[in-house]
Amino acid sequence: MAADEQVTLLDTWASSIGMRVRIALAEKGVKYEFIEQDLWNKSGLLLQMNPVHKKIPVLVHNGKPVCESLVIAQYIDEVWKDKAPLLPSDPYQRAQSRFWADFVDKKIYEHVRTIMTTKVEDQEAAGKKDFIDTLKLMEGELGDKPYFGGETLGYVDVALLPYCCWFYTYENILNFSLEADCPKLNAYCKRCLQKESVSKSLEDPKKIYDFALKLRKKLGVE
Amino acid sequence: MAADEQVTLLDTWASSIGMRVRIALAEKGVKYEFIEQDLWNKSGLLLQMNPVHKKIPVLVHNGKPVCESLVIAQYIDEVWKDKAPLLPSDPYQRAQSRFWADFVDKKIYEHVRTIMTTKVEDQEAAGKKDFIDTLKLMEGELGDKPYFGGETLGYVDVALLPYCCWFYTYENILNFSLEADCPKLNAYCKRCLQKESVSKSLEDPKKIYDFALKLRKKLGVE
Repeated sequence: MAADEQVTLLDTWASSIGMRVRIALAEKGVKYEFIEQDLWNKSGLLLQMNPVHKKIPVLVHNGKPVCESLVIAQYIDEVWKDKAPLLPSDPYQRAQSRFWADFVDKKIYEHVRTIMTTKVEDQEAAGKKDFIDTLKLMEGELGDKPYFGGETLGYVDVALLPYCCWFYTYENILNFSLEADCPKLNAYCKRCLQKESVSKSLEDPKKIYDFALKLRKKLGVE
Repeated sequence: MAADEQVTLLDTWASSIGMRVRIALAEKGVKYEFIEQDLWNKSGLLLQMNPVHKKIPVLVHNGKPVCESLVIAQYIDEVWKDKAPLLPSDPYQRAQSRFWADFVDKKIYEHVRTIMTTKVEDQEAAGKKDFIDTLKLMEGELGDKPYFGGETLGYVDVALLPYCCWFYTYENILNFSLEADCPKLNAYCKRCLQKESVSKSLEDPKKIYDFALKLRKKLGVE
């Protein structure tokens, strides 16, 4: 990383999509300034850097903003390309990685948004079984590999790993056990958390749960 | 393109997201077999090639499937890389292209799904103004460039251009005029349709409208 590079991340501590960017930057060994954003009172900087979506995360690299977590992850991979490649070099493998990262981005995000905005007593109807089935599908894709990226942490891992610190919250709200339902995915989370690039980018699951309960109260579902 | 390559597209003629793949293949000069799919009675081949989403389009290249239109577009760009690059080479410009293609994929798709599943009399409430605002935002991003990709057709164009043959349908359902509300975007559509790679990949707007009306009747909104 060049000494005169300026890298800033506009993010909020509990954001799973923000954590994607943190993991990618940590994997690449990129130092950056973290500027916490208040999503209930958006800063002028956030509105200026992401005028289209007005959302975190935004990576500001030498003054220029990049928005949307998976776009940012690919940008990071292409700029700091000499260390810890996130996407493989083969076009077919790259397409497969993009497919699964997109799957996580659409399907899992859709599920967790429903979980977070639905009362506990309505969760069965709101798709508890579908959520667990989706996790099992991811588990099947993981198979016996250490990472979705194969032998090393890759793009799909960057997309999925942040949920490792949110699963405790979903388990409590939905009343299920990741260990019982998806033992391989559970072991994967534990294994990945042993990597410093992951552990330092994620938050304490109990702190997340406390935050989630407050957010659910604010949304009128707790 | 090597003589022994086999390229097949599982698609359905009126699909805007399928047309993305057709434009990308046409830009690259890739010959392929088009296998029309009946989405009301999905083929064994489609279910086998896209077991996760069970959706078109699927590109099958030498027996191996690639799914999701934007993933396919990037795959095509990376495999047939010697002709008509869709993504620029600079990482920041690539990120910007991915951002806007993703914007089209999420926002415009969301709008048109609402338009297609909402009764004419409910369209004002269902977001007619937001849809036109979204198109104006795209028009602002286009600016005075001939293409979103700059001087040549690129990845964002691949994502957006299929809607050129659907706008006639949206104009009729929503009772608005693309020419009046978004003159630059309207001119862009006309200009791009002069390219053979685009015109041969898109369908007749009146045939699309006829199809859309039948689909809306099936959905009980017409």
